[in-house]
Formats: sequence, C-alpha cells, structure tokens
Amino acid sequence: MDEKIWDVIVVGAGLSGLSAAHLLRKKEADLEILILEGKDRVGGRTLTSDIPAANGVDRWDLGGQWVGSTQTHLLELMKELGLETYPQFNTGRKVHHMGGPGGKIRTYKTSIPALSPVVLLDLTQLLRKIDKLCATVCVQDPSQTPNAVELDSMTVHSYFEKHGWTAELKEEMAVSCRSVFGMEPSQMSFLFFLMYAAAAGGLLPLLESSAGAAQEFKIKGGTQQLSERLAERVGLEAVRLGSAVTAIWQEADSARVTTATASFSCRAVIVTCPPHLAAKIQFHPALPSQREFLTQNMPIGHLIKFIITYQTAFWREKGFSGEIVAGSSTDSPFCVTFDATSPGGNAALVGFIAGQQASQWSSKEAGERREAVVSSLVRYLGPEAASFIHYEEKDWAEEAYSGGCPVNVMAPGLLTYYQPSLRKPCGRIHWAGTETATQWCGYMSGAVQSGQRAALEVLSDLCPSSTTPDE
Amino acid sequence: MDEKIWDVIVVGAGLSGLSAAHLLRKKEADLEILILEGKDRVGGRTLTSDIPAANGVDRWDLGGQWVGSTQTHLLELMKELGLETYPQFNTGRKVHHMGGPGGKIRTYKTSIPALSPVVLLDLTQLLRKIDKLCATVCVQDPSQTPNAVELDSMTVHSYFEKHGWTAELKEEMAVSCRSVFGMEPSQMSFLFFLMYAAAAGGLLPLLESSAGAAQEFKIKGGTQQLSERLAERVGLEAVRLGSAVTAIWQEADSARVTTATASFSCRAVIVTCPPHLAAKIQFHPALPSQREFLTQNMPIGHLIKFIITYQTAFWREKGFSGEIVAGSSTDSPFCVTFDATSPGGNAALVGFIAGQQASQWSSKEAGERREAVVSSLVRYLGPEAASFIHYEEKDWAEEAYSGGCPVNVMAPGLLTYYQPSLRKPCGRIHWAGTETATQWCGYMSGAVQSGQRAALEVLSDLCPSSTTPDE
Repeated sequence: MDEKIWDVIVVGAGLSGLSAAHLLRKKEADLEILILEGKDRVGGRTLTSDIPAANGVDRWDLGGQWVGSTQTHLLELMKELGLETYPQFNTGRKVHHMGGPGGKIRTYKTSIPALSPVVLLDLTQLLRKIDKLCATVCVQDPSQTPNAVELDSMTVHSYFEKHGWTAELKEEMAVSCRSVFGMEPSQMSFLFFLMYAAAAGGLLPLLESSAGAAQEFKIKGGTQQLSERLAERVGLEAVRLGSAVTAIWQEADSARVTTATASFSCRAVIVTCPPHLAAKIQFHPALPSQREFLTQNMPIGHLIKFIITYQTAFWREKGFSGEIVAGSSTDSPFCVTFDATSPGGNAALVGFIAGQQASQWSSKEAGERREAVVSSLVRYLGPEAASFIHYEEKDWAEEAYSGGCPVNVMAPGLLTYYQPSLRKPCGRIHWAGTETATQWCGYMSGAVQSGQRAALEVLSDLCPSSTTPDE
Repeated sequence: MDEKIWDVIVVGAGLSGLSAAHLLRKKEADLEILILEGKDRVGGRTLTSDIPAANGVDRWDLGGQWVGSTQTHLLELMKELGLETYPQFNTGRKVHHMGGPGGKIRTYKTSIPALSPVVLLDLTQLLRKIDKLCATVCVQDPSQTPNAVELDSMTVHSYFEKHGWTAELKEEMAVSCRSVFGMEPSQMSFLFFLMYAAAAGGLLPLLESSAGAAQEFKIKGGTQQLSERLAERVGLEAVRLGSAVTAIWQEADSARVTTATASFSCRAVIVTCPPHLAAKIQFHPALPSQREFLTQNMPIGHLIKFIITYQTAFWREKGFSGEIVAGSSTDSPFCVTFDATSPGGNAALVGFIAGQQASQWSSKEAGERREAVVSSLVRYLGPEAASFIHYEEKDWAEEAYSGGCPVNVMAPGLLTYYQPSLRKPCGRIHWAGTETATQWCGYMSGAVQSGQRAALEVLSDLCPSSTTPDE
C-alpha cells in the first residue's frame, strides 16, 4: 500500500482524463496527480498505427480521427500541442447503395445523396422536423426540453417510422445512426439522439464532411498524438499503464483507489472511462441508485473500423471521392467508407462496419470479413479495389478497457428519469468522459470539454482560489 | 488460496442458485458443490421479515411473494419442501384512480376495472391485439417471432401510443408496467414485453390475482423459506455468505472464482445473479462481446415494497378488497396495493412504489414517503388507514447485491441483435437466474426453472450418464 496522499487520481488516460490532468497541472503546478489506465497505452478510443502502404509504411487512425471547425475545445488543444490538420478529401462522385442487394447503385457529387425526387422531398421534410426539434433541446438538462417525456419514450426508429414517408429514407437514416453511434435506430432514445445532434450544432454536422461538420479535417500524424503529447506535458511519471481500477472506496477525509496490484489514497477522483466500464468498478459506499440505473441504461456502440491501403488512389483517378454509403439491406458489410489517403500521399480508404452489421460480422473469421469488404469495394469502385496492399481492421468491442466504440448511447426513458446523475459528483468522485460533454458529446472535442469541466470542479473543491467565478 | 477443486461453484444463493445446487445434489450426491453469496443471507430477491402486528409480530415477504397455479416449477419445489399456500384475498370492492389528482376515484368488484364504456372498449381491443401477438412469440428465441425486428424496435410506450385510443387506458397500461417490471413502458422493448407475457401464458395472468394468474396464492411463512429449506437440503456448509464473487478466470482445465478474501478452483460455474450484477464480475478471458452488449442492455427495475399492519382489516369490514390501483398522475406514490393479511389473521396491506415513482420518491426522507403512502390510503380506504401499527418498507435499489427489483428488462433492439447469448454457456460458465427462464421469466418459478436447466447443462458436461436425453 502506497501511503502517499495524492491530490487527484484520474481514472483513464484517454483524451478526457489527460485533458483534466493537463488543466489541473496548468492551474496548480504543485498538485500531486496520478493517472491510472487499464490499457498498455494512452489514448483511449484514439489509436494511431503503422500500416504497410505504397511508400513502405504510414500512420493511420484506427479510432477517432476527424475534427470539425466548430469543435473549439479540441482545436484549442491542438493549437497548444502544435498539431496540424488536413482536409478530408471529398472531391468527386460519391457512391450510394440502398434497397437490397439488387438496388440501384447511384453516384452523385453534391452533399445531398442521389435520391429520387420523392425520397429527396422526404429527406428534406424529415430533416426540417428534426432540426426544429433540435433547436428546442436543452442540452444541459434534456429533461427540460418541451415534450421531453414523449420524445424520450420512443426509439429513434419509431420516430423515423412515424415521420418518414419512404422505406428508402428510413434505410438512409439507419445508415446514419449506424455510422454515427455504432448502433441501430431501435437502440436509443429519440430525445438522446436530439440532444446529441444539438450538442454538435444540428443533425447535418454529425453526418457531413463539409465546413463545420464532424468529418471536416484529420490530424497530421494521427489523433493519438493528442494524448501522447498531453501525457508528456503532464509528466509521463504521472501515468501508470496496465493499472485498471477495480474499486474506489470513499472514506471521511480521502478516497482509496484500488487496482489489481496496488492501492492509492487521494483527495479527489476523476472517473473518465465510458459509463459501461465505470459500472464495473466497485464503489464503497455504494453509488446512489440513480447513478447505477444511469449506467445500466447506457450501452456502448459496436464499431469495426478498417483501413485498406493501395498503390494509388485509383478511385480518385476514376472520378470517385472514395465516399460510399451502403444500406444494411445490401451485401456490403460496411455502412460507409471515405478516402483515407495520408498527407504523405499513401493511398487508402477507411470504412466502418457498425451496429447490427458489426454484430453479425464480428463473429465471422477475419478473412471472410476482409473478403466481403473487398468484394463490396470492387463492386462500388471497380476491380482495382481487389489489389490492395494491406487490410487492417480494429473491432473496438474486442479491445480491453473499451469494449465498444464510438460512444455510449442512452436507452429510452433514461434522460427523463435518471439523467441528472450523469455529471453530478458523488462525494469525492467527479465524472468526465465524452458522454458527459455538452458540446460535441461523443466526440474527441467533447472528451476534452468534459475533462476540463471535471478538472475545474476538482479545483473549486481543492483550491478554490485557482478558479474564476466564470469557470 | 484453497487448493481443492470443486465440481461446481454456484454464484448466488437465491432461488435459482439453490435450485441448481439442489438438483445437482439429487442427481449426483457426490458432487462437490460450493455456493458463494454476496449477501449475509440466502434468498436473493425473496426476503421474509418479522413485522410488528396486531397479535404482536408476524412474518411478511418484502420481496417476491406470489405463486400462481400454472407456475409448475415452483409448485413442484414447494411440494417437495413441504410448503403450503393460501389464496390472495380479493373479495370486495377494488379502488381505481386515474386521470390526475382530481380524477374520479371509482370502485368495482369484477376483475375488469371500472372504466367508462369507451375506455373499456379500448382495453378490450388492445388486450386482444396484444394477446394475438403474444401467441406468435417464440419465447425460446424471440428473434424468430414474425416481425421481430419491428416489434423489438419500439418501446412498450410507443406500442400503447399507436394502438391505444384513450389517455386513460394508456395511464392504465403504464401502471401495469410499473407494477410488473418496476419500469416505465418507455424503458423496454415491446418484443421483450410480449415474450415476458408469453412466458407467463398471456398478459392478463401477469396482472391479475385470479386462478392461474401471477398473484393467485401466497406461501405460508413466507417465500424466503424456499431458499432456506433448499440450503438445508444442499447442506449449509456448502453455502458461504458474505462472499461476493469479483472475478472468474477460466483456465485450460478449470475455472477460478475469486471473492474479496478467497479464491476457489472448480470444473464448472453457474452464475445466477441478475445480469447487471453479472456484468460487474471480471472475466478472463473476456466474455464474448455479444454477452457484454447483452448485459449492457438489461437494466433492472426499481421497486419499493411496503407492508403496513393494522389492528383489524378495516377495509374488509367496509367492503373493500384492499386492492387499489393508482396512476402516476394522481398524488399517490404507490401504483398498487393488495390485502396482505397473514394466515394467522394479522391485518396488513402490501403496496408498491415503482418505476418513475420509485425514482422520484426514493430520494425523499423515509418519513415523507410513509406519510404520502398513509395519506393516499386514507383517501382511498378511509380515515382508519391513518391508525396503523407499523409501516415497513424495502427499497430494493438500496439492497447490496440486488440493486433493484423485480427483474431486469430488455432495452429495444437487444432481442433481435444479441439475445442468443442470454443462455449460451461461455466455456465452463453457465447462466441462470429468472431472467434466463422461458416459463414465468422474472418470477420465482422462472428462477427455479433456470437453475434446474443450468444444473442439467453442467451435469451433461461433467457426468453425462446422470442425465436423460429428454433433459
């Protein structure tokens, strides 16, 4: 047993935990901070890997990768850490496939998919309705939204069923849910969906790669650098890897945080791991039942991300952007792909197998999954897609101390019955992680925001003079 | 570390775990069986307590209490253990209050509530539709039900909204959900709801206290005796209380089950604790991701049960049965009460504060809650209700190693994406608990069925000759 009393123990060395530690250190250089991480690396749901490529090898993100120009918390941090962006390539024809394996494969150049006039009308009216509702959402406390109970009592699927007119649009919207949440529209509360969109500035910003949207830029050298550089600034000695927290005991004047092999005392704890993992920690005294019910109603999505590298970006040469959107009714295992050519010019595509498709495909052999992906790419982009250099995939459900990606959603009923406990500290325990963010919740920017917010909470408890009233 | 190799370790000394151990012992007397229980008592979600009463003191059930004549697994066990039933008293006028605090308080004597003709017509058509759907449900694998994905993609609330005509009926159905599941209709999949009803023989059996229904009989002396007598038969030395399992490691030729203070090796494990608690156990190797997603999508209900004792059953004298049904729009904290007079003649009422009402009322002072309950009883049954002997309540969300009651439900989308993992063994680990039952799932009878099924699975692995092909 380590008899030292730490000021703050941060559970999780992802972007949220390291942002918290970084802000604590900047505000109060003398604070004794310890960061405990289950994985053998920092970065949480960001992971940058070397992958064989045209020029030998290059780096790609197997986790969170995109940045948008309205993600102010992330952009400020990137500036501070000296990281640069480059735009998501989106010039050329996009491919769009819905309506079953035999459905027509359409291509289009605009940001609006190639849809029949009726479906386009349907899309327009549905987006207008959703945007109108988004504007009414109280992101800080969604239970205060007009008509909250009704909006929270239906699944996203039920809303689409009720307010969408065409089967094609409903398939389109399911693809969107799958790619944004790694979940089916049936699996989450419509009020949660609205809150999530509102926290991003609307529904379209979640879906697009245009200015201000979630898929606007990427980070040169990969997003894991954010956490790596933060860890350097905080001090590598403050980060203990391979140290999964199993228990947090709160006593009168301190808290005790336990891993498989050690136990630490501290004055405050910031728990940043996703809610389904926080639920596995043993707490004494037990957390309030509202908090337990909260985590029981926040399942995480299922996402398999793949990067496939090529000698040349043959799709660009053929006039394609690399963006493919495919419904689950088609034979395609993936719901969406994008161009992923590196800033160094190494050609690649990135794609996602998500939601029910991840559930179906994750149990198959890796080779079978790869063949299905490649054969779909061949179908959509041409035979050149078969001659890839390397296919790398990451099933986030299999990653220890993640268990899924990209985000925990909220089941119906949660926001109107238990939500106040999402950010409410429990004694010395403060809650962070992108799921607790109010701006770009579920994104890297939300992770940064939530970490900083938790750090300010702790500072106002431990050293009130270091925070301003505004904070 | 205990170097002995146990044949079977059962996690949880509730009705399911003890039924499993009992059957194992009966089939193979020499099996070395160890039962590890977190609580300091056996019985799980059954708990029988001494409560001050008219004749001094008597015993009441603060957890599961009712038995129905179609609950064959439980009835056979009761017969074997020598336990007797007595009928639920339901003679006299029932009280029915919906439509806001000022809504009319109606009384009625039939099994069908006193409703206006329109609402009655609405009830009839809705029950007919639900019963028709129930008949199509494949309880063993609900994903095989016709139209399964659609039924699983909506909440129970959405189904009632779509197919119910009147606000009063919708309030009525919400009360039913709350009292059966401790959950709001918004919080669960409609396919799960149908499966649950189908496993009980239909929706009405869940709701009524008539012949064959869930609330038909009670057990003389209380339901905890089931577990106590099972534990005696299995052998008290086989049951270790205060031994919450924190980890299960599977190795090549054995499994290792760990508590806070000890570690045991065994050939097979039966995990019987409810899914949200099983999810807190650390498993190595990690469980399949499908199993993790399953438990993330199975929140438990919230139920506060109260027993209030009186000198006389004054309500009977006034022609009331003791049954009160109250909507959440009224001022009543409880959704339902019944007569709970003991076989020894000690007068009492039993009631439930459930779902969103449990969520609201659990955070208030016990005294405030008691006063609200009593003042509602006074309103519905008369001023005599104020002169009680004792008010005893049990908030199951506060009970360690329960965290809620009566049952874990399934969020929308779960049954059609992950459900096969509900009963699917993971190596040496077998799954029991009432949530895994196919007959009277969620009830004591389902707990017995699930424990016996898991025992037979283990026997067919460990000593195939002891089971018949039918089993």
